[in-house]
Amino acid sequence: MEGGLFRFWLGDAYRKALEQVRIWMEEAGMSVRIDAAGSIIGRYEALTPDAPALMTGSHLDTVRNGGAYDGILGVMLGIEMVAALNSDGIRMPFAIEVVGFGDEEGSRFPAPMLCSRTMAGQVDTVPSAIVDAQGKSIAQAMEDYGLDPALLKNAVRQKGEILAFIEAHIEQGPCLEAEDGSLGVVSAIAAQTRQRVRIYGQADHAGTTPMTLRRDALAAAAEVVSAVERIGVASGENHVATVGFLEVHPNVSNVIPGEVRFSLDMRAETEAQRDRMVLQIQEEIRNIVARRGLKASFEQSHFLPSAACTPEMVSQLEKAVSSVTGRPASRLLSGAGHDAMAMVHLCPMAMLFIRSPGGLSHHPDEDVRVEDVELAHRALLAFVKEFHLS
Amino acid sequence: MEGGLFRFWLGDAYRKALEQVRIWMEEAGMSVRIDAAGSIIGRYEALTPDAPALMTGSHLDTVRNGGAYDGILGVMLGIEMVAALNSDGIRMPFAIEVVGFGDEEGSRFPAPMLCSRTMAGQVDTVPSAIVDAQGKSIAQAMEDYGLDPALLKNAVRQKGEILAFIEAHIEQGPCLEAEDGSLGVVSAIAAQTRQRVRIYGQADHAGTTPMTLRRDALAAAAEVVSAVERIGVASGENHVATVGFLEVHPNVSNVIPGEVRFSLDMRAETEAQRDRMVLQIQEEIRNIVARRGLKASFEQSHFLPSAACTPEMVSQLEKAVSSVTGRPASRLLSGAGHDAMAMVHLCPMAMLFIRSPGGLSHHPDEDVRVEDVELAHRALLAFVKEFHLS
Repeated sequence: MEGGLFRFWLGDAYRKALEQVRIWMEEAGMSVRIDAAGSIIGRYEALTPDAPALMTGSHLDTVRNGGAYDGILGVMLGIEMVAALNSDGIRMPFAIEVVGFGDEEGSRFPAPMLCSRTMAGQVDTVPSAIVDAQGKSIAQAMEDYGLDPALLKNAVRQKGEILAFIEAHIEQGPCLEAEDGSLGVVSAIAAQTRQRVRIYGQADHAGTTPMTLRRDALAAAAEVVSAVERIGVASGENHVATVGFLEVHPNVSNVIPGEVRFSLDMRAETEAQRDRMVLQIQEEIRNIVARRGLKASFEQSHFLPSAACTPEMVSQLEKAVSSVTGRPASRLLSGAGHDAMAMVHLCPMAMLFIRSPGGLSHHPDEDVRVEDVELAHRALLAFVKEFHLS
Repeated sequence: MEGGLFRFWLGDAYRKALEQVRIWMEEAGMSVRIDAAGSIIGRYEALTPDAPALMTGSHLDTVRNGGAYDGILGVMLGIEMVAALNSDGIRMPFAIEVVGFGDEEGSRFPAPMLCSRTMAGQVDTVPSAIVDAQGKSIAQAMEDYGLDPALLKNAVRQKGEILAFIEAHIEQGPCLEAEDGSLGVVSAIAAQTRQRVRIYGQADHAGTTPMTLRRDALAAAAEVVSAVERIGVASGENHVATVGFLEVHPNVSNVIPGEVRFSLDMRAETEAQRDRMVLQIQEEIRNIVARRGLKASFEQSHFLPSAACTPEMVSQLEKAVSSVTGRPASRLLSGAGHDAMAMVHLCPMAMLFIRSPGGLSHHPDEDVRVEDVELAHRALLAFVKEFHLS
């Protein structure tokens, strides 16, 4: 499974990517700067100088063992869009900025979307408690890269400076492929809760402890995994619930499991839907462990509100998409988080999804179809040419 | 959880234990030798020299992080029994041998009961493919200890030399405690099968893959764990079925599990019962993975026949037990393996179980009650004084 990209924020591969992106941005007619958080920003001026900007782009970092399209495709589509305008000599009444954010994935520091959250004014000082796998702080990593952590707040953009944000991104899921569609328009980014659960039973000899005298933590956890799946399905479309991580102690074939730790990842289109599902799952877990005379503990590890895409932008993007595909645009919920979740705090936002063959992502075999990318390019260009806010 | 004993076969602690056991055996009036497999054997002669022997004892090795009673208590009870005969000047028409076997647990080399299997004629050459965690072969470990691996077959005993084998051992389970009994007489050692199972699904993004398009290997495995428990219970008393080991890949909270590996440990009083349960469980696994469109593979890792205790010895032991406890002796199935399983190939055998407080074993807190050990000592002495084979 190893062998993919690992282009983490402020690493050597990240620096090289920025150098190349700078060249492409300049070739497309943009002036380029690196902001105080290490994101790269290319600006294509409007008809008049200092006009507010429509921003597009995505992130340049990858997960460990990642693929070639997650994030960076959205940056490249932004550059190509500006290049097309520039080669036709077109300037819009608004400036266009193309951004490559530094750390959407949180794969170096467990602080995902730090750059976009900073730009959107959600963060203005460097988190001091967070370190990477080598124990290096974010501030130290910034200094090593040549950034001054004390200046982070200079990356914050003011409301009004950015008119809107539109992000193109691979779907990372199977929905467009399932309906044989190239492009989708995102309705919202799902509300998400992650929890860590532990179930405490009693480790005993698997040969000598009768079935009726056991307190088997894995048998209880198995019931929970089945309940999570059942409730996830029953909650309806736009709900997902997953146990992705599960660890058994002592994890020996002839010992009844004494403790099981597992993760819960629960997402839905709105917070209310998500919270209803979370409550159902938690109640079910409590019932299962109580019936078996065991104990459970819960710890919340992640809690993200939903981010609705701006309806006015969604309908303009749908028009742009159907103008290039010749069919009505599909609407999708984004189950994954994106920089657009952070940017919604600064300005209206929308997202364009590009089909992921096999639904594959965060994997070296992550792919896109050339014809889908061509359609995405044309749709983004059509969107920008018609973009207006009432 | 660390901190218990780890007295593995042919290690330094094992050598020291043998030195101490030799002293105690000699004090009890026995002549002592170490056999070619490294087991210690004390012999208390009969009224006439070179008479066939009744053998008792158990093993001197422990699991990693083990307790103070598993195995060695049976050796100590044998020594105390001979000491009692010796101090009363009693000699029987048969010799008595007390054995401390070297490697019942298989905790250094994955070759459990190698010493008793050798004595019983099931093994006569050193297995060459088996190495310890440091990569050392059994033959090399024997040489380092001062044993000649080429002479292993000298540890084989001939039929007729040993009249019978009786092993006293802690129960390692909760059954005697549940019925408030000190001692139990074993009816049989369970038939056992262990398998390694893999379920292959498809790893996908937990946020972007709808519930209905998933091939979740853990959701399937959870159904299997529940089925194993259900079938184990439904199969009735003297059946146990356990998933003790389970490993998820890639085991990340926001990724749908693509593969799960787990162990199955299935035991019953007879092979026929065990095999019926194994078939039911395997059919259920095949149904579960087929319904979900997944694949599974099975690998047998362990397959042991049941070993019935010799009825004539069982009834003599029951009489001895009830003569000291004043109540009818409990009969138990041994879910765990014991050296007696190997010795049954050489001679009739029986087993005496001593209550395990909390059912606890293979743990530093493993314990026995002093009054139960006193009763076991008196029962073993009573058994030996009345022992005869028709």
